[in-house]
Amino acid sequence: MDKKIKAILFDLDDTLHDSTGQVDTARKAAATAIYNEGILPATSPEEVYKKYLEIVKKYGTNYEGHLSILCKKYGIKPDPRLVAAGRVAYHNTKFALLTLLPRTQETLLWLIKNNFKLGIVTNGIEEKQWEKIIRLKIRPFFDDIQISESIGGHDQKKRLILTCLRNLKIKPEEAMLVGDKIKTDIVSANKLGLTTVRIIHGRYKDEKSRSELEKPTYTIKEISELIKILKKYNI
Amino acid sequence: MDKKIKAILFDLDDTLHDSTGQVDTARKAAATAIYNEGILPATSPEEVYKKYLEIVKKYGTNYEGHLSILCKKYGIKPDPRLVAAGRVAYHNTKFALLTLLPRTQETLLWLIKNNFKLGIVTNGIEEKQWEKIIRLKIRPFFDDIQISESIGGHDQKKRLILTCLRNLKIKPEEAMLVGDKIKTDIVSANKLGLTTVRIIHGRYKDEKSRSELEKPTYTIKEISELIKILKKYNI
Repeated sequence: MDKKIKAILFDLDDTLHDSTGQVDTARKAAATAIYNEGILPATSPEEVYKKYLEIVKKYGTNYEGHLSILCKKYGIKPDPRLVAAGRVAYHNTKFALLTLLPRTQETLLWLIKNNFKLGIVTNGIEEKQWEKIIRLKIRPFFDDIQISESIGGHDQKKRLILTCLRNLKIKPEEAMLVGDKIKTDIVSANKLGLTTVRIIHGRYKDEKSRSELEKPTYTIKEISELIKILKKYNI
Repeated sequence: MDKKIKAILFDLDDTLHDSTGQVDTARKAAATAIYNEGILPATSPEEVYKKYLEIVKKYGTNYEGHLSILCKKYGIKPDPRLVAAGRVAYHNTKFALLTLLPRTQETLLWLIKNNFKLGIVTNGIEEKQWEKIIRLKIRPFFDDIQISESIGGHDQKKRLILTCLRNLKIKPEEAMLVGDKIKTDIVSANKLGLTTVRIIHGRYKDEKSRSELEKPTYTIKEISELIKILKKYNI
């Protein structure tokens, strides 16, 4: 191929670490801890978990008051002890399970060894995303890290990519974006003319591409497959 | 310089992570937790800590029964509750403080980017050393890892270095050893003809070289100084 790829931009959640698996397990632990407090008129931890998921779906993942709403759904006043029990279980589980997906560190080291510039482009609350990057101990692997909150506005991912490319001094056609979400990662990078790689992982893994713009250049199941793809280009 | 360095071998404790600082703080936490149980006829946490250190010095760091001996020193039967309180405080503190020394990850990434082969050669209980390597998330940075217990016998460090060099297919004169202990790290590597770098850190930082064999080729205070040294050789 005549294209030369010089930089790889990565989404964070469900691309570098198992966000979906980690959060699911943490929410189950929170539901069980809340049920075990014996305050809610609930019939099982599973029932609490189901109601909890409905609240997350309705209010979004970054809303802070999920557990207070849960109390209200069961007809009781938000109980600080209950909220704390759930929060402790949630965070302890989440941190314990926060690890890179298989072969991620090895793949990043291979990319560094082969002189690729590396970036992260991720939407999310800035402090939360930084906390994950620090806990995962991957900060020094990346030449540039862009998180949406510091930029804001519509079509955030596209702006993050453009800022990252500018900082890396890389043209869109020299870059590859790796992400799990068709609607944000793949569409925005395709629009800008990057080579795109969709990683099939997490809660968006069953999504289908419905147009040319939604089609990634490559589809992979594990990050180490990038090595084989990049060898075709320029190694 | 005409020497070409192709591989860097690192000691682990007090070279890649702050073993001394971490263990000191963990032992203080253990002494305080034990004192707070109110069982020992002790006058202060500091007194308990002092006696604890004397026991560590006498029985060695890897002995498992420090806290039982501490009970005996205070004239009481080894108390499982007390031993457990100390052990929990010790391990919680130790794990919380187990981090790489400043700029270690960045330096290792620079070495990888510049095609150096990397090894770890460390004396210690094999499972304990592996636990640290895994918690520090540095396993994939290294091409070979040698821990003494799997080899054993006299002059362990020398054997570890020779095994590591053989696995890396590197001659002694093409390798550099970085470590904190003169008597093991520097002497063994000097004997074998490696270039040696002493890092001034931790409980051996005030040691002096008393012979030619004890003199390192270079002395550094922080691991990132390696980059400047290696640039003189062959970058």
